[in-house]
Amino acid sequence: MAKDKAPRRPRAEPPKGFRDHFGAEVTGRRAMLDTIAGVYHRHGFDPLETSAVETVEALGKFLPDVDRPNEGVFAWQEDAEADRPGDWLALRYDLTAPLARVAAQYRNDLPSPYRRYAMGPVWRNEKPGPGRFREFYQCDADTVGAGSVAADAEICAMLADTLEAVGIARGDYIVRVNNRKVLNGVMEVAGVLDPADPERFSAERGIVLRAIDKLDRLGPDGVRALLGEGRKDESGDFTRGAGLGAEQAEVVMGFMDARRETGAATLARLHALAGASAIGLEGVQELETIAELLAAQGYGADRIVIDPSVVRGLGYYTGPVFEAELTFEILDDKGRRRQFGSVAGGGRYDDLVRRFTGQSVPATGVSIGVDRLLAALRERGRAGAASAGPVVVTVMDRERMADYLAMAGELRRAGIRAEVYLGNPKNFGNQLKYADKRGSPVAVIQGADEAARGTVVLKDLILGARIAEGASLEEWKARPAQQAVPRTDLVAAVRAMLEQG
Amino acid sequence: MAKDKAPRRPRAEPPKGFRDHFGAEVTGRRAMLDTIAGVYHRHGFDPLETSAVETVEALGKFLPDVDRPNEGVFAWQEDAEADRPGDWLALRYDLTAPLARVAAQYRNDLPSPYRRYAMGPVWRNEKPGPGRFREFYQCDADTVGAGSVAADAEICAMLADTLEAVGIARGDYIVRVNNRKVLNGVMEVAGVLDPADPERFSAERGIVLRAIDKLDRLGPDGVRALLGEGRKDESGDFTRGAGLGAEQAEVVMGFMDARRETGAATLARLHALAGASAIGLEGVQELETIAELLAAQGYGADRIVIDPSVVRGLGYYTGPVFEAELTFEILDDKGRRRQFGSVAGGGRYDDLVRRFTGQSVPATGVSIGVDRLLAALRERGRAGAASAGPVVVTVMDRERMADYLAMAGELRRAGIRAEVYLGNPKNFGNQLKYADKRGSPVAVIQGADEAARGTVVLKDLILGARIAEGASLEEWKARPAQQAVPRTDLVAAVRAMLEQG
Repeated sequence: MAKDKAPRRPRAEPPKGFRDHFGAEVTGRRAMLDTIAGVYHRHGFDPLETSAVETVEALGKFLPDVDRPNEGVFAWQEDAEADRPGDWLALRYDLTAPLARVAAQYRNDLPSPYRRYAMGPVWRNEKPGPGRFREFYQCDADTVGAGSVAADAEICAMLADTLEAVGIARGDYIVRVNNRKVLNGVMEVAGVLDPADPERFSAERGIVLRAIDKLDRLGPDGVRALLGEGRKDESGDFTRGAGLGAEQAEVVMGFMDARRETGAATLARLHALAGASAIGLEGVQELETIAELLAAQGYGADRIVIDPSVVRGLGYYTGPVFEAELTFEILDDKGRRRQFGSVAGGGRYDDLVRRFTGQSVPATGVSIGVDRLLAALRERGRAGAASAGPVVVTVMDRERMADYLAMAGELRRAGIRAEVYLGNPKNFGNQLKYADKRGSPVAVIQGADEAARGTVVLKDLILGARIAEGASLEEWKARPAQQAVPRTDLVAAVRAMLEQG
Repeated sequence: MAKDKAPRRPRAEPPKGFRDHFGAEVTGRRAMLDTIAGVYHRHGFDPLETSAVETVEALGKFLPDVDRPNEGVFAWQEDAEADRPGDWLALRYDLTAPLARVAAQYRNDLPSPYRRYAMGPVWRNEKPGPGRFREFYQCDADTVGAGSVAADAEICAMLADTLEAVGIARGDYIVRVNNRKVLNGVMEVAGVLDPADPERFSAERGIVLRAIDKLDRLGPDGVRALLGEGRKDESGDFTRGAGLGAEQAEVVMGFMDARRETGAATLARLHALAGASAIGLEGVQELETIAELLAAQGYGADRIVIDPSVVRGLGYYTGPVFEAELTFEILDDKGRRRQFGSVAGGGRYDDLVRRFTGQSVPATGVSIGVDRLLAALRERGRAGAASAGPVVVTVMDRERMADYLAMAGELRRAGIRAEVYLGNPKNFGNQLKYADKRGSPVAVIQGADEAARGTVVLKDLILGARIAEGASLEEWKARPAQQAVPRTDLVAAVRAMLEQG
């Protein structure tokens, strides 16, 4: 086979954790992003597209460290210049960090509040695994410069609208809303937050947050163990806990369990739990305002609910946090029924821009996991049909290529997707196999005989595919497998076949 | 201003050579890409989206070298694993190298020929400068597995169709076609290509190619110098030449000058110049076939011409090469009139897949420089209007936020872009300034008085902008600057104002 004795050939594969997207996958995602952009646009959000590459210092969080600067991100160092070492650059790991940079850089030019949306790939330098990729799409909407929780309510309502616009039925999703301030109030009541010394207990609070975030996976007992001394998992690995006493832990557990039948009852319960703390009270009041604004717009508990179990892992949230979950069941890898789960999340982060300017700028936003949402739509059979293959004009006589090109051109001018077979035409069977592989609905054939008679033969490949799929030949009796039509009727006859479907 | 005494703040700017795109820039590019995708799709091309990151070995050309592996590309090394050093990864520098990798990787699954299009950013690690960026969009269409020059003709015709589809008028562009084989024939005749020993003189041929490619910039004398001993430029830098004798150089110069009034005359001239070489003759015949196929489809010399001065710099082309140039004049940075120039180019490259598989796979394709084409459309005033700003519902009474949100919701449900002002509502002037900055057509105002009367006030901001632009107030006499309408007529009244435009 191989004739070269050249140096070792490169492997024909992408790096581990990266992948390629073909055909309908690409157009399906594009269609979904266009729909989402339409909803965001109607809400007054403007598109922003930042570069894929940022300086590591602007990205923050991952600070350069001579040995291992690229923990979690893909990073590299620029060439040194005469007077200074090269900057460390990195691929963006989300769309929020670049927004914070833009909001700081253009703070004098952008409208305030600044509503923007962004969609595109982000990159994570993590160990790839099944279903875990190192490049994936995000689709974010954020409002920068609005301190009012009306901005959070707007994001939640828009998130619900977006899910319905892309094809998730009402009832198949729920947007759950919580507030970090309430959680902080609970922490204060539990004695792991000291308003006079906010840095104190920060390690413990980190563990508490992560523990709460794992409620789904570990159950109440697992979380309680992590709130206390720690937890040994099935593999025997020990995770150190937050070291809370039993009474302290119960305050936190009570918070996660605070959801009641109605939003009002949940809010009353949260008030009872955290109202003794100033920050906790503020949080409860914010949730009340959000609930009122949403109710006034008709977003009821069938779409958006207050749910204290939502905490969102990221450290930077400072107020309301929210999450959209799809509630229908799917079968997991092991054939067990489970809920589809989270497809979007976000919240208020009032301190990201301050890193650059020293001035706090209120901001809130949401990020939709595009790939997960697409998977969900596929699961619901609403991902949009695979795009139809082209009409294939076959080549019976390679000297008459110009005639075949003319046929394809006529079809295209009539809006019909069409192409001429451009492989080696010698084996006609290969041409029909090719048309099959393309999902072509119709093959156009014109040999010397047909040309002499001024006709073309149209072969119905949809029919062929249906028969292969099991439709009985009887059903298709009235439908000819192929027909000769006058050359001048080519476009009309093909269109009729396509409409017959 | 700044209150922190924290560590040095990060600079709020993207890395050098990178930039951000806002609002209408993003939607304008998206609309253009969608139009191009539509043309490609109608021609039977399928979308492909590869990852931004490839292994350096798969990208090729830039081979890993411990000291400086990232010449021209952004590259970094993966973490080592137990048994082997980490791979070198890099951002793709074009969309062709990843296609070659995909064509090799999926060669048993893809239809053959495989027509695909791809659009997205590519990255070059080059010194940034004015108008020179290190991240930019490309938009490619390629046919892999078709050896026939009908595939090249199709790409050229599709390129012409694409330019017209995005808004470049016929007459404002020209697609120029040449063939590397003709050039190789000329090289053979000039004595810098030995068919029996293709590697011989390859350095000289490289210099000849680059010299020809610079004809526009250096003029015939400059090129002649580079074909001979070399050339000293204005700064005094000396570029070594190919070392051709005067007679040899004249053969090459004659080739560049071979274009005649008609395609047929040009082809006859090329035949005279290179027909003595077998490869040259083959090249001329291929150009003849391309010209015939294009003429048969009605693509005349007003759209596509044979032009021997097109060589395309890249080494990997093996047959037909083509370039689309916009022929209208613009003013350059120094106010001089010049032609807009090249916006797309491509050609046949039959050896890229062989790197992976050892088997030669014929391929041809074109790459459109998206940013240049967008700039051209802007130049022609055909870039599509900036998207209209949203209707802004102002906040007169922050206790009545739910009412304002309801107004925006109603407008949106009627398909009208609308938002509530979410900044601090205290200073009403700021709200109107904000609406102005957003390019808002209408501001909606409802204070306590209006609410009591069941009305809203609609302020015509289009009118305000037109007056500011110099339209006389007289012209707008019939048009009220603001009007009170019943709350129930909100949507109808806003729509009427928008339609008035």
